[in-house]
Amino acid sequence: MPHKGLVVGVVGATGMVGRDLLMLLERRRFPVKELKLFSSGSKKQSLRFKGRSLPAPGPEEKSLQACDLVFLVSSDEVSKRWGLRLAARGVWVIDDSSAFRLDERVPLVIPEVNAHALRPDRRLVAGPNCTMTGLAVAAWPLHQAARVETVRMASYQAVSGAGKEALSEFFEQQRGLPFLRADGAAPVLPAGRSKILPRAIACNVIPQVGAFDSRGSTSEENKVSAELRKIWEAPELEISITAVRVPVVRGHSLSVWLEFERALAPERARKLMQKVPGLMLHKEGDYPTPRGAGGRWPVYAGRLRQGSSSNELCLWIVSDNLLKGAALNSVQIAEVLLKRRWLGA
Amino acid sequence: MPHKGLVVGVVGATGMVGRDLLMLLERRRFPVKELKLFSSGSKKQSLRFKGRSLPAPGPEEKSLQACDLVFLVSSDEVSKRWGLRLAARGVWVIDDSSAFRLDERVPLVIPEVNAHALRPDRRLVAGPNCTMTGLAVAAWPLHQAARVETVRMASYQAVSGAGKEALSEFFEQQRGLPFLRADGAAPVLPAGRSKILPRAIACNVIPQVGAFDSRGSTSEENKVSAELRKIWEAPELEISITAVRVPVVRGHSLSVWLEFERALAPERARKLMQKVPGLMLHKEGDYPTPRGAGGRWPVYAGRLRQGSSSNELCLWIVSDNLLKGAALNSVQIAEVLLKRRWLGA
Repeated sequence: MPHKGLVVGVVGATGMVGRDLLMLLERRRFPVKELKLFSSGSKKQSLRFKGRSLPAPGPEEKSLQACDLVFLVSSDEVSKRWGLRLAARGVWVIDDSSAFRLDERVPLVIPEVNAHALRPDRRLVAGPNCTMTGLAVAAWPLHQAARVETVRMASYQAVSGAGKEALSEFFEQQRGLPFLRADGAAPVLPAGRSKILPRAIACNVIPQVGAFDSRGSTSEENKVSAELRKIWEAPELEISITAVRVPVVRGHSLSVWLEFERALAPERARKLMQKVPGLMLHKEGDYPTPRGAGGRWPVYAGRLRQGSSSNELCLWIVSDNLLKGAALNSVQIAEVLLKRRWLGA
Repeated sequence: MPHKGLVVGVVGATGMVGRDLLMLLERRRFPVKELKLFSSGSKKQSLRFKGRSLPAPGPEEKSLQACDLVFLVSSDEVSKRWGLRLAARGVWVIDDSSAFRLDERVPLVIPEVNAHALRPDRRLVAGPNCTMTGLAVAAWPLHQAARVETVRMASYQAVSGAGKEALSEFFEQQRGLPFLRADGAAPVLPAGRSKILPRAIACNVIPQVGAFDSRGSTSEENKVSAELRKIWEAPELEISITAVRVPVVRGHSLSVWLEFERALAPERARKLMQKVPGLMLHKEGDYPTPRGAGGRWPVYAGRLRQGSSSNELCLWIVSDNLLKGAALNSVQIAEVLLKRRWLGA
């Protein structure tokens, strides 16, 4: 029985996540009867969906209230303004910002991990931080089998995670780079300038994503910790992260150490991971990279091996930060709501 | 009393480390009476030193035997051919390759850490792997204070560490990259091609440095472990590494977790690290990056903070892989030999 279709709103449609979201609604044949696009601000723009050009004005309350479902893929500020207000009017709201992720009233959901956290009466649903998503999906079957006690993780985060302007800055810096000198020496690059990211990112890596707190952690690192504990329902989990920006366009990579309560052999872990929908485990000696995983839907993992004891595993994880880390996860949440007939029934 | 000067040979002088070595001999006023340069192979080239052009033919036995000191900055094969042979003839040989690093007869030396391992009768001396050097220097005072039991480390390694051809390939790939589309979406890059590195490195990160062994570790990861144990004289040390190549020209970065036998507070660690020659510790909220540290001599560290327990510290380390990771360390070893009058006395 084909669905009649929904009135769907997208706030932040002109951003990078917004554009990927439109592509996904089309490619995953999401039952859209009417699509209402909004930019984050007041600037008028237009976007293409299914071959047609659609206007994208700033958010309009009446128009948003008339939606069955609204995706918020803009800033924390925009989400704070619209999230609870629309949900209170009966609109399903799927929020990709960090505004409500740690709010006890708001389910924080990755469908492969905790679709059970969704409730028919909690119409505001949050999607998690893009850096954490790959880890939450890939390590979930292992956590269920042997209980993760401590996570240590170093990230390799794409510039697109910092937004359009950061990506533009990155491409500009790339164009301005000198090339290898003819005499065969390795050039010494100057420190370089930057406006959006805290340092020049071209030919560099920056161990700062977000602002530092008084304990020396960044906001990104704190988000990952708090959100993973909530999604896994594991308040005791120890998490230690160094979040690092790298000169990559799409795809966050993670080098992870998982310490378990009980021993877990790599072979058993491999079998458990192979059963997870949305997770692609590379075979031994192979591994994913951002250029291979960018633009794709699954979470990819590889380099699964023993860590520094039989209770520890090492893992390399890559997922597209704009897709599974943001737009795709939001669409997947909506698909669960549809399937349960909580949405548009 | 000015030194009369030494006859110094450099094998592999036309490589990237070789060129940096010549620069260092000049800038550190190393007492060179005569400099004999050799390429790694048979191709004739010439190089500049102190404003003069010098020929760099393939290695010549007679000419090498007439040296007081020979730097080997070429391949393992070249080092295996010349290392022991020249040392047996009384020539001091400082080898930057991995050929003899784990040989019990050969001191493996980072002067800041274990200059005591040098012996007047062991004329072949090895310098360590460039990825390990930063860690060995930065964490040494902490190991002495509280005994490191377990090291976990994710690396961010510059392309120059893979040699001239890898760097050329990287620059070529950069030139071939598309730029941000005008519509504001983040481009999906194709996987790309590569000949030297195992994957395309531009806008990518590659969790493979060297070849895989049967346990799923790479040769680079195994080198770091074995060499750190030797240099620190810590055979029981547990080390777990993921070595990753990143699109950076110069400067290997490390995200490190150090688990200690005893608790060690970040404040105490900070004080210990501030006393180490050749180590620059950034203040809290600041950190080094490869573009800042590339071309410089010290090892840089930052983001010192507690890890997942009071017995654990996190640290971010950057050092120039061609300088402290290779050429500079070799020159510093020679400087110790000079100071002790074992060389050229």
